[in-house]
Amino acid sequence: MSLTNASPSEAARAAKEASHVLATLPEPARNEALTAIHAGLTAAKDDILAANARDLEAARAAADRGHLSPSLVSRLDLGKKGKWEDMLKGVLDVRDLEDPVGKITLRTKLDDGLELTRVTCPIGVLLIIFEARPEVIANIASLAVKSGNAAILKGGKESTESFVAISKAISAALDGTKVPNGAVQLVTTRDVIPQLLDLDRYIDLVIPRGSNELVRYVKSATRIPVLGHADGLCSIFLEQSADPKMAVDVIVDSKTSYPAACNSLETLLVQESALDSLLPPVAEALLARDVVLRCDAKTKAALTASSTLSSSPDLIAKLEDARDADFDTEFLSLTLAVKSVADVGEAVAHVNAHGSKHTDAILTGSPELAERFMAGVDAAGVYWNASTRFADGMRYGFGTEVGISTNKIHSRGPVGLEGLMIYKYKVRGRGHVTADYGEGEGLKRYKHEKLPL
Amino acid sequence: MSLTNASPSEAARAAKEASHVLATLPEPARNEALTAIHAGLTAAKDDILAANARDLEAARAAADRGHLSPSLVSRLDLGKKGKWEDMLKGVLDVRDLEDPVGKITLRTKLDDGLELTRVTCPIGVLLIIFEARPEVIANIASLAVKSGNAAILKGGKESTESFVAISKAISAALDGTKVPNGAVQLVTTRDVIPQLLDLDRYIDLVIPRGSNELVRYVKSATRIPVLGHADGLCSIFLEQSADPKMAVDVIVDSKTSYPAACNSLETLLVQESALDSLLPPVAEALLARDVVLRCDAKTKAALTASSTLSSSPDLIAKLEDARDADFDTEFLSLTLAVKSVADVGEAVAHVNAHGSKHTDAILTGSPELAERFMAGVDAAGVYWNASTRFADGMRYGFGTEVGISTNKIHSRGPVGLEGLMIYKYKVRGRGHVTADYGEGEGLKRYKHEKLPL
Repeated sequence: MSLTNASPSEAARAAKEASHVLATLPEPARNEALTAIHAGLTAAKDDILAANARDLEAARAAADRGHLSPSLVSRLDLGKKGKWEDMLKGVLDVRDLEDPVGKITLRTKLDDGLELTRVTCPIGVLLIIFEARPEVIANIASLAVKSGNAAILKGGKESTESFVAISKAISAALDGTKVPNGAVQLVTTRDVIPQLLDLDRYIDLVIPRGSNELVRYVKSATRIPVLGHADGLCSIFLEQSADPKMAVDVIVDSKTSYPAACNSLETLLVQESALDSLLPPVAEALLARDVVLRCDAKTKAALTASSTLSSSPDLIAKLEDARDADFDTEFLSLTLAVKSVADVGEAVAHVNAHGSKHTDAILTGSPELAERFMAGVDAAGVYWNASTRFADGMRYGFGTEVGISTNKIHSRGPVGLEGLMIYKYKVRGRGHVTADYGEGEGLKRYKHEKLPL
Repeated sequence: MSLTNASPSEAARAAKEASHVLATLPEPARNEALTAIHAGLTAAKDDILAANARDLEAARAAADRGHLSPSLVSRLDLGKKGKWEDMLKGVLDVRDLEDPVGKITLRTKLDDGLELTRVTCPIGVLLIIFEARPEVIANIASLAVKSGNAAILKGGKESTESFVAISKAISAALDGTKVPNGAVQLVTTRDVIPQLLDLDRYIDLVIPRGSNELVRYVKSATRIPVLGHADGLCSIFLEQSADPKMAVDVIVDSKTSYPAACNSLETLLVQESALDSLLPPVAEALLARDVVLRCDAKTKAALTASSTLSSSPDLIAKLEDARDADFDTEFLSLTLAVKSVADVGEAVAHVNAHGSKHTDAILTGSPELAERFMAGVDAAGVYWNASTRFADGMRYGFGTEVGISTNKIHSRGPVGLEGLMIYKYKVRGRGHVTADYGEGEGLKRYKHEKLPL
């Protein structure tokens, strides 16, 4: 990894050149580099934690002056229990994943001696813009090396000392390997994001990891494709035939197990015919966990009248009236918008109009309605009788993730190594020319025989 | 298909709503719609050809005044031999392709009763901006219906009468089918392209089909992902061990079989050690077909001194001196830039620095050098001993193509139906919640078992 104060365009040009070398390295060379990175970080532990302590000290002082949130300060801390070990283990976990490079995904015999193959290959140069968490840099450098992509990293200023220390260790480690030094670059100069976002000549994909504001800004400021999601407005449709206990369990998990996560529940749609039966125990369980319910008129009336809640004026007093905007809001906190819908068709229409194409679930005892919901909802994840919080690369078994995408092209949902790949078509011939083929007299026909992979 | 004078945002909103219905239609319903389109066009032949004749008349008058190129006028003509029949056959060809919707591409058992599947699904709403050729509209409407995507079509003004006549026929045909009317929309109002390109809320992918200028403009003017290519700067590296006759055949086909095509040869790189042996017969064959050769100093000197050409002062007089810009130019005509390089490494570096990532070939007798070239060149197509002009969806056996992409994400190279698909993850559970899983005491572990597709 090189640590650069070069101009953004010099850094990007160097990354592009390095990407062409990295793309041709065989798997053992990329894996050896990851082993070296692991060893280098292990050896540099004291220096890195000392640098992190300096970042932390500055951040705490800023927090005391009210310039930084305490939760951000907490995310900076590499010394927290298990964090350093997790970071190191992550490097080896990525190394041990299946090689995503060079997989043959199509083979066709175009004609005798003329064969077409489609082979996975790295995308090229990734620009990764991230905020405070310093361990992300080791994770992303590992993913880049494993997938054969060059990476330009631009981290949040609060972690600069940590980033620089980690970069130095990785850079020294890579020096003894076949991975070119320019393949992973940390850009430490300030205010260069707009310049980087303009370098579509060198940069193939931008991955912003951070707040919704960061992602929205990046998407609006570049012609380079952006992989990520600004919003995670997940919904659950509670259908009348759902199992009542399961409904409570899944909705409580979806809403309360980590309210600030992008895969947490933000809107609960309840079938009108189930307002008196299924909704009250769900509401009671949520209220008991301090969830604020913003209810439309029908759901509020049903809850107020229900035997479950009517004996608890305290709970009823906690119900709030939903405004229209609540159904377009990602609360990222213990607030939930609640609305009644007539049936699965209305639920699908609501989700398609108001959701963020992240993850939406139906709770129902009917396989037919479940399939209809999952076919009709346009989202990266569509679930039946399971918590929305399963939307995660680790939980899906991808080993790791570079993020979750709500894009409609390339990669969608949790994105692992596979999402950092594209393909190329290779044609191997023996001097074949197109003028020999056609419909006319004496011309050859294409064979287009599928070959085994 | 509806023919709309509605505002662009109304058209796009209607297309989005229709896309949600179209995405859930089973294959037979989509295929029946294509059969109906074929019948409708067949029945409306006289009306459509009469409308086309009016477009043609106006275009010929504009050409006479020098406002339109004669080649554009020729492309407008639906009455040309075979064109109408090809257009109709194309509709049925698309219908008979394998269904790209609902293919399962990953299945994982996350835990007992909790299964993850990845299923292909349509992208959503496509905006297709194209220029004059009126038959394209039938082709694109067919691809959209087959792939389950809604499409907004905006055609060049020279073909308006033809487009309207074809649209009316398709619209009437779709009325008797399950495909909603808003699923294919022709926008005929003028000057709406900037407004359409701003509708990223409704439109998921833009496919510009036309001149380099159109593609460049579209790419610079929208946040919506764009599928296509602005340039097709294809190169061939003639390595010293190439078979001489094969070199002549492949280079002549690549350059002269259709010089205006994006997969035609624009730059010839010749290994320095082969300048006296392999280059002269190639140059002679190209010059005999009126190809203008723009040569760097070394290749010009070799040709001037060669026994093949030195006896023909006429041919030598035709050699031109290359300027640097020639190696970054897509001539789209019978002009070829010619340059000497030391070896395969220099050839790869030249192609990566100057090419357009479309299609590049090596001609060599060495499998090892061929593989090195194909691994090192970052392009959608990398060929060994075959003409660059094979880069085409029909020739690759994709049945049809929506275009050729030089993008580095999603789809690359000739893009068929597969390139119009994305996927969604479906999770089917029995009330599973994430809080039950983890490393601690009493918590469950994920199974992550790969299941057969």
